[in-house]
Amino acid sequence: MRSIDWIEGTVRIIDQTRLPAELVTIDIHEVDELVTHIRSLAVRGAPALGVAGAMGMALAACRSAERGTDLDADLAVAADKLIGARPTAVNLSWGVRQLTSARAEGAGVEELVAAALAIRDADIEINQALGDRGAQLLAGARRVLTHCNAGALACVEFGTALGVIERLHAAAPLEMVYVCETRPLLQGSRLTAWELGRRGIPHQIIVDSAAAGLVLGGEVEAVVVGADRIAANGDVANKVGTVSHALAARYAGIPFVVAAPESTIDYSTESGAAIDIELRDADEVLALAGRRVAAPDSTGLNPAFDVTPAALVTAIVTERRTIDGRADGSATEPGLSRAN
Amino acid sequence: MRSIDWIEGTVRIIDQTRLPAELVTIDIHEVDELVTHIRSLAVRGAPALGVAGAMGMALAACRSAERGTDLDADLAVAADKLIGARPTAVNLSWGVRQLTSARAEGAGVEELVAAALAIRDADIEINQALGDRGAQLLAGARRVLTHCNAGALACVEFGTALGVIERLHAAAPLEMVYVCETRPLLQGSRLTAWELGRRGIPHQIIVDSAAAGLVLGGEVEAVVVGADRIAANGDVANKVGTVSHALAARYAGIPFVVAAPESTIDYSTESGAAIDIELRDADEVLALAGRRVAAPDSTGLNPAFDVTPAALVTAIVTERRTIDGRADGSATEPGLSRAN
Repeated sequence: MRSIDWIEGTVRIIDQTRLPAELVTIDIHEVDELVTHIRSLAVRGAPALGVAGAMGMALAACRSAERGTDLDADLAVAADKLIGARPTAVNLSWGVRQLTSARAEGAGVEELVAAALAIRDADIEINQALGDRGAQLLAGARRVLTHCNAGALACVEFGTALGVIERLHAAAPLEMVYVCETRPLLQGSRLTAWELGRRGIPHQIIVDSAAAGLVLGGEVEAVVVGADRIAANGDVANKVGTVSHALAARYAGIPFVVAAPESTIDYSTESGAAIDIELRDADEVLALAGRRVAAPDSTGLNPAFDVTPAALVTAIVTERRTIDGRADGSATEPGLSRAN
Repeated sequence: MRSIDWIEGTVRIIDQTRLPAELVTIDIHEVDELVTHIRSLAVRGAPALGVAGAMGMALAACRSAERGTDLDADLAVAADKLIGARPTAVNLSWGVRQLTSARAEGAGVEELVAAALAIRDADIEINQALGDRGAQLLAGARRVLTHCNAGALACVEFGTALGVIERLHAAAPLEMVYVCETRPLLQGSRLTAWELGRRGIPHQIIVDSAAAGLVLGGEVEAVVVGADRIAANGDVANKVGTVSHALAARYAGIPFVVAAPESTIDYSTESGAAIDIELRDADEVLALAGRRVAAPDSTGLNPAFDVTPAALVTAIVTERRTIDGRADGSATEPGLSRAN
């Protein structure tokens, strides 16, 4: 079961907005539909969005060929729409650019589709490599905490942070995974808990703000999260709330580990300060299950991400390397260099 | 309009579980009913619970006199029930003990009622003094953040943390109050936002986990919260999530101020480690508006409070003094001494 796949000229996704109540897939024929589903978070998670970006371009190429319209013009329109669907998600634009580059090098429709499928396949391998590396780094930790969903649903299969957790559990059974519910859209309680349940890993759902108390109370031995974008200096943009866990981990002296593919690193973004934080609809905060709960005349502010300063990150684990953070609080900021 | 009051031998409370949709009061005749409403958080907030504890004892005394049963036996039963309703809330047991002591000194039914009313009246004065002192301490701050509800609804009138915010706003209009929604029961978005709206103070509701990003991003100049219990060493137990704001404030170098009456200080509790953290029903985390949202087989953990170490508190403001915290991180822990 894959969160996103390619079936005979269409993109098939699991509709994550309907989990955990029901497991429903959607077949997508047009780029505009895919953009809608990216915005609604039916497909979500940094690595999955990379694949979605590439498959969206493949979709545009197939439709262009069927309609006999101008391939390059159609791809340019599709690229803009796809990238604009989630401005903070660097993997999405990365996936799009992979196919733009392939086209610039002369790829035709079939080769564009093949390029998208290669990105899908690479994602699976990347996650497994990353899971092994992360589990090695955190060997011995039996009680871990995670935020949002950096699981199989966020990737094609397996997961980044949850891949690390799965590998840790395989090495020696975990006592507890604390799952932050992840307001406002509850990716933790809806998706991560569902995935951990399917994998038979013991877990408890907590409100996001309970994490710090558990960490400072000694209940957590490591925090492991994914990333939506990593700046060249090592600052990490991830789901809103991530930095609060990094602060708690630092205060308690436990590792705060970011598990993310190399494609998440955006060398063109100097630091977290340059990252555009997506502001989502305030109704996500003001209403629960479609019913307004907040005071009638009040407004909300709904940033989807926050930035964890590199100085609070113990390590970034990718499919190729473990990048030591500057969690010692040192002021030097050497920044990340490209992996070979 | 008072959150709790005494009307001719009955306790009248605003039912806070029905705010902000509707403003409904409940008249309570029996201690058991009051205990139920304390548990359901219809009446809540540390100072209001102090008054509720005292009024609950006055209620027991009145009913005892009407029924002609043994006053001391009835008061002892009532005291146990009231204190057991919310074990972490030191003000509740403080309020109960005030009346137990009055009875031990020979107070009759009328004098017990008078003692409860005196606690109510003192609460109003205490909050105003505390608001003035806190506003003086934070003079100049125009963008503040608060958690949960430490407002008029948490007291009899005016509020502790919101009293400070009201006085700050009166001195020079605030640009913004960031209101943490306060999962799981949303006292922030339901109650604090409602109060700020009534007072005409600009505010925005955020998910709790968005606070750290705003604080680290320079959007917040001070954090001000209430307290449920303050240990003798200055550790502060307050609504779950409070310590995460203290960590962010420390990292960003902004003040983290606790506004609470002297009665919140529990000299018999050495440190935060000795505070019994109330675990509430996990369904509060797993369901929204009565509908389960979490994965079907998952369980939750729902601590109602957390402990902020004294070292992270810039100052505790009471009605009588400003207690400097050890926010410099110094290891010395002189503890609190009783105010004269």
